[in-house]
Amino acid sequence: EQYPQFVFNKAIVDATADIVCAYKPNSAFYEARGEKGMQELKMTFEYIQKKYPDIVTILDAKRADIGSTNEGYVKYIFDYLGSDMVTLHPYLGKEALLPFLKRKDKGCIVLCKTSNPGSGEFQDLKIKRLDSRLRGNDTGSADNKTMRLYEYIALQVSKEWNSNNNCMLVVGATYPEEMKKVRSLVGDMPFLVPGIGIQGGDIEKTVKAGLDSKKRGLIINSSRGIIFASKGKNFAEKAREEAKKMKDEINKYR
Amino acid sequence: EQYPQFVFNKAIVDATADIVCAYKPNSAFYEARGEKGMQELKMTFEYIQKKYPDIVTILDAKRADIGSTNEGYVKYIFDYLGSDMVTLHPYLGKEALLPFLKRKDKGCIVLCKTSNPGSGEFQDLKIKRLDSRLRGNDTGSADNKTMRLYEYIALQVSKEWNSNNNCMLVVGATYPEEMKKVRSLVGDMPFLVPGIGIQGGDIEKTVKAGLDSKKRGLIINSSRGIIFASKGKNFAEKAREEAKKMKDEINKYR
Repeated sequence: EQYPQFVFNKAIVDATADIVCAYKPNSAFYEARGEKGMQELKMTFEYIQKKYPDIVTILDAKRADIGSTNEGYVKYIFDYLGSDMVTLHPYLGKEALLPFLKRKDKGCIVLCKTSNPGSGEFQDLKIKRLDSRLRGNDTGSADNKTMRLYEYIALQVSKEWNSNNNCMLVVGATYPEEMKKVRSLVGDMPFLVPGIGIQGGDIEKTVKAGLDSKKRGLIINSSRGIIFASKGKNFAEKAREEAKKMKDEINKYR
Repeated sequence: EQYPQFVFNKAIVDATADIVCAYKPNSAFYEARGEKGMQELKMTFEYIQKKYPDIVTILDAKRADIGSTNEGYVKYIFDYLGSDMVTLHPYLGKEALLPFLKRKDKGCIVLCKTSNPGSGEFQDLKIKRLDSRLRGNDTGSADNKTMRLYEYIALQVSKEWNSNNNCMLVVGATYPEEMKKVRSLVGDMPFLVPGIGIQGGDIEKTVKAGLDSKKRGLIINSSRGIIFASKGKNFAEKAREEAKKMKDEINKYR
């Protein structure tokens, strides 16, 4: 087979397209295979967009550089691959990320509270509260003159970065209490939620913590739990079963 | 010409190899051109490593994902391209970045204070001082119970992340005062210094702020100012002149 990764992806997509709202390939695993991987990533995006134009595509690339350089990533992600959305690091600030943010036709999903066990090292730091935007919200801080870094990033993205109404936040399923706080700070801004499945996140807690005022607003992602549900020839069929099970469980708690 | 970017890079490298200590291609501009760009990036790394094995190669990729995913980036950057070093976002914490940090044969250059005008949005936030590691240092904070986020990241990388002695920090030439502070916090850890040239950083201020105790420790980078010094046929010759001028100026202030 000339394009084994594309053939695999196509089988997964065809088996799950009536169940899911989005596909989120991670750029790392394609880059690892060099130009061949990149080609198969592009084929995958093109296939989804042509055959299932109503399904959102997200490149999980966790990019962010200075402004002029981000123009290069915009070309790769939005123009070459044709992805609808991308995941981004907040650390360089809004000014650097403008090449992404100004693309009104595309979505910018900013890392806020990530799903990994060590995410608190910087994300949970207590910062001096800089303004009164948190007034009236319970941030859970013992001392009401501080807030957590991830909370401040959530506020900045929702109040300052989102003038084109094209921003979302990454909030891991492994931190439902933090998800509740972020939801209380940002209103109905949607979340991309990794961490279900192998990483240990719980669907019931996630849905209860994260739904917006219209009982919507979550793209809950399971990657390895679905695509590697079976290593046999029935991998696509098993992926469909897992995806359906997950969808039913999500809807049970809405 | 089948590989115009490679031909350009080769000419720049051959014209400057006796003047510089490192080359730092930025992944974004190659990714923007799809699998063709990736191929030319690989050819560039291979050329430098074969012809000039003593010169360090840095992929400016500003990556960072959760642990299992970083394994994919490690394959792309260190194994496929063969880069000696990579630039990384700190936001997910040490635990997530271990696949990079544990590569003792490779360098991890962590974003600390970036050169862009809006870098202060999060990097300059005042955080509650978490421990006594700053005691005896003047951090310049009005209030000695706080420190800046970028200062804390510098401390974490130098005290907690660097057990393989393979870490560096990105500190922009556009912020010499902040560079001075970082130098006072981390001892002789080397810095990668972007921001000279088009971005407005000053060589004299940078060298005076950033040298370590042995009057070394800085990789000062100019990208556009050197590779685009001339748009004519003499681009390589002009790049050499600019690189030489910059080296002489750096050495003048050591």
